[in-house]
Amino acid sequence: MRIGAPGAEKPVVRVDDTRYIDVSDLTADFDEKFFAAGGTALLAGPVAERIAAGQTCEFAGERIGAPIARPHQILCIGLNYSDHAAETGQAVPDEPILFTKSPNTLIGPNDDVRIPRGSTKPDWEVELGIVIGRRTSYLDSVKDAADVIAGYCVVNDVSERAFQMERGGQWVKGKSAETFNPAGPWLVTPDEIADVNDLDMWLDVNGVRRQTGNTKTMIFDPYFIVHHLSQFMVLEPGDLINTGTPPGVGMGHDPQIWLQPADVMELGIAGLGTQRQHVVGPR
Amino acid sequence: MRIGAPGAEKPVVRVDDTRYIDVSDLTADFDEKFFAAGGTALLAGPVAERIAAGQTCEFAGERIGAPIARPHQILCIGLNYSDHAAETGQAVPDEPILFTKSPNTLIGPNDDVRIPRGSTKPDWEVELGIVIGRRTSYLDSVKDAADVIAGYCVVNDVSERAFQMERGGQWVKGKSAETFNPAGPWLVTPDEIADVNDLDMWLDVNGVRRQTGNTKTMIFDPYFIVHHLSQFMVLEPGDLINTGTPPGVGMGHDPQIWLQPADVMELGIAGLGTQRQHVVGPR
Repeated sequence: MRIGAPGAEKPVVRVDDTRYIDVSDLTADFDEKFFAAGGTALLAGPVAERIAAGQTCEFAGERIGAPIARPHQILCIGLNYSDHAAETGQAVPDEPILFTKSPNTLIGPNDDVRIPRGSTKPDWEVELGIVIGRRTSYLDSVKDAADVIAGYCVVNDVSERAFQMERGGQWVKGKSAETFNPAGPWLVTPDEIADVNDLDMWLDVNGVRRQTGNTKTMIFDPYFIVHHLSQFMVLEPGDLINTGTPPGVGMGHDPQIWLQPADVMELGIAGLGTQRQHVVGPR
Repeated sequence: MRIGAPGAEKPVVRVDDTRYIDVSDLTADFDEKFFAAGGTALLAGPVAERIAAGQTCEFAGERIGAPIARPHQILCIGLNYSDHAAETGQAVPDEPILFTKSPNTLIGPNDDVRIPRGSTKPDWEVELGIVIGRRTSYLDSVKDAADVIAGYCVVNDVSERAFQMERGGQWVKGKSAETFNPAGPWLVTPDEIADVNDLDMWLDVNGVRRQTGNTKTMIFDPYFIVHHLSQFMVLEPGDLINTGTPPGVGMGHDPQIWLQPADVMELGIAGLGTQRQHVVGPR
């Protein structure tokens, strides 16, 4: 986890709901340099020693930041759940659809989400996020992808559908407004997850369940996605991949539903923690 | 300019074809932190003093790197010359089409361009690059964009057309292969350019002129683009914007022409310098 004020987060390792180990003396941040140098594997020994020595700290209501520093890229997979593709009226893709969002959209899991100026169709998307653990290019096989994944986290791939669909055809305009990528609360290492392809996920708006899904209905699973992307570009340590959203987005409702100021989004993925964002109006 | 080995470039200020001022004691790099702190304006005084004191260095055949460090984003405008839109068989856009390329595609102006594995349609694109000078959001007017532009450079927005057009619909897959964004040789500050909307540009492949253009035939000029993008996202200091290519890309020829290993691309923009890349095969 990363806790503290925006831009001044401290890297820590969560022990349980009330305690953490401060690792800010071992790494300045959970950033590209940290992952390139070995990442979370290097923390296991020191953290075990500190737990044994009773050097835990108590959470004291600190703000939770995104679990990683601003990455080199936020890569996103579109229409990766067949029933979500159907609700948006688009065909199931033959291969992963790739788009990006501006890396500076990354915020903490409980930070405010701000509707951008001129927005008419702001929408939600609970997603499984993949964090890349090492520089990766041309993976030989889908199976090899497991070796380059540092961990997983919850993300809300907030979207402005008019900007995404009606402003030139490429989607990045509708994905890149500030605050549009809450992530966390935790980066969960793969060893902590029994089966990444069987994780329940959900999203509520104002207490009403809007999205219900499970990663087992993904068209392209995380290993397929990482192998596939590595054929087109070099993935950097700390890069974040949003893997697509299950059904239930506002665009898919009849009539369509859009986020409003004062709305509250709550979302989560089994074992990866939960998020809660207030929606605020344009600045 | 930045000169030296890849990943170890030194920031310098060019005096003329043979001499430069080393400014590596004033800034570690021409990166986001440098531009956020004031950028090139802070170098003017020290550089003038050093020139007066005769503290110039001679270029000694050092490799030239990209003129800026790896940026937070490389943003690209598509189909921004009406006759280029026509040659690709696409409509002239109503507003700038935005896509991105992976920031780690950035290389020096004379580095090798590597054809990616599986490529069948690698192509060239001479473009005017804009470098953002400060954190920018919601510019009030097109005119205000001039205040946030740190400078301009030549870029070759190398593209793989099959990856771009035939692999899911979003363009980023065809723009993000390693080495796909030669930039430089210089970052030219706006005061050095008489009229950014009247710059001749050209690109040769193996000595044959393929692209001839002038920024005056842009559909959306640099100020319009920066103002427009600032409505959708926060631009960071050091971000690079590729502003689109004039006619003459390989895709637009009849029959179409694609880059081959051992090809040589030479390109330039009046006042912004020239580039020369060897094309090499996949690794």
